[in-house]
Amino acid sequence: MRGWIIPIGGRLRSAEILRRFVELSGGALARIAIIATASHERETGGRYERLFAGYGVKRAKTLGFDRRSDCDDADWLAWLANSTGVFLSGGNQLRLATTLGGTPAGALLRELNRDGVHVAGTSAGAAYLSEHMIAFGEEGSTPRAGMVAICPGLGLTNRVIIDQHFRQRDRLGRLLTAVSYNPFCLGIGVDEDTAAFIDPEDAFTVLGSGAVTVIDPALVQHSSVADAAPGEPITLTGATLHVLGAGSTFDILTRRAELSVLRDSYATFDQPS
Amino acid sequence: MRGWIIPIGGRLRSAEILRRFVELSGGALARIAIIATASHERETGGRYERLFAGYGVKRAKTLGFDRRSDCDDADWLAWLANSTGVFLSGGNQLRLATTLGGTPAGALLRELNRDGVHVAGTSAGAAYLSEHMIAFGEEGSTPRAGMVAICPGLGLTNRVIIDQHFRQRDRLGRLLTAVSYNPFCLGIGVDEDTAAFIDPEDAFTVLGSGAVTVIDPALVQHSSVADAAPGEPITLTGATLHVLGAGSTFDILTRRAELSVLRDSYATFDQPS
Repeated sequence: MRGWIIPIGGRLRSAEILRRFVELSGGALARIAIIATASHERETGGRYERLFAGYGVKRAKTLGFDRRSDCDDADWLAWLANSTGVFLSGGNQLRLATTLGGTPAGALLRELNRDGVHVAGTSAGAAYLSEHMIAFGEEGSTPRAGMVAICPGLGLTNRVIIDQHFRQRDRLGRLLTAVSYNPFCLGIGVDEDTAAFIDPEDAFTVLGSGAVTVIDPALVQHSSVADAAPGEPITLTGATLHVLGAGSTFDILTRRAELSVLRDSYATFDQPS
Repeated sequence: MRGWIIPIGGRLRSAEILRRFVELSGGALARIAIIATASHERETGGRYERLFAGYGVKRAKTLGFDRRSDCDDADWLAWLANSTGVFLSGGNQLRLATTLGGTPAGALLRELNRDGVHVAGTSAGAAYLSEHMIAFGEEGSTPRAGMVAICPGLGLTNRVIIDQHFRQRDRLGRLLTAVSYNPFCLGIGVDEDTAAFIDPEDAFTVLGSGAVTVIDPALVQHSSVADAAPGEPITLTGATLHVLGAGSTFDILTRRAELSVLRDSYATFDQPS
């Protein structure tokens, strides 16, 4: 069965997000491969190694995929091949795509997730997870033709297109634009300090202090982007919007948002949520 | 086995391209579904119906997927489900993506090709075939950050990104830019009146009066697009370029260009090619 896919919106503060990722990956027995390729800062990998150690992980290692020529290093690939979880740091998602794309490391990441290894990414690392990646774009809530640049990402799923720092950087417009080009992909906007834990059957649960905004184009009647001039606002009718707080779940296949298992179990124990 | 995927570069004149498509689709027994959604002109579908009749096809029908609400029409879906070949006209590829994306017709097209039905597209119809589609862009041979807009396409394959009217509209720069974002996808630039016949095992043969340009990023050492400012030229080193004339073949999996079967058989019969 496929592993979990876990986009995180950046600026992690809530302990529960990494704790849950570690738990899924085997707890104290987890073997976490850290990929800090997106980051400019040399210290990023080491910071995550110490952070994971704080969650009881004994084996967390930064793999130095800094250049394309690093991405067929036999030792790093062997370490990666035996990981139970992979964590992609923030930075610039185009560094991930340009460095890992088409390399043995990129292919191995896809195989591992297909075979059950969980892959989490924060900020740029979140954007990179899907087949269709938002590379960069402009701020604002109104969709406008050309306000977002999309390119091929890691490709763990093609069902969603992920944006991050979502409310904090006013990215509704660029995510709507991305969805308006082809109402096949679901848009998922993840706030800072928030994560969507997408399970192997393509339902996700929200964790963290913010929300996950879903733009579901299943019922879209019309998108004008084929006729819009560059920069012109796009007419888009019939998109379904969900804003999901912690504990909420959403099924990507059935497109249904549901009350969380967490809240149901609270109810069972007669505790108000 | 998957059906053939056949991008055509627009401005069809060589009879052999449609003749070969008809032959693959069953000759006189072919049942060709024509999708003219990309076109502004009402007459496009009828023109292709007459063109296919000229190749001996008795059943060629234009399916009226003009609006998203047309794309779950039971009669048209039934006709499409029994087709042996699908032909997508030219026009604007964003009309295809915005109209068919996420609809039953779009899903059926992918299923049909997966199950053996051949899908050909010319111009906009060619661009739309792949998972990653060039929506629009600028002319010129130098790749520059932001000169191309990519979005999700039909998704018959994610291994290639297709451009069309390739030499005639000076599109090397935008295809190089598309490849530079993520050196996972192979870039395929199809000239006018030229086609790449991609077989079920992902090798293609060139037919027509022009050439197919392949940009293979397998050996790319560096792409600077992560650090390039909008409009700035992109540094891209180590891409392999092939320009393939009629009869040449290219294997997308092994990345090998080879002398054509056609030429080999000429040689067998002692005819200079």
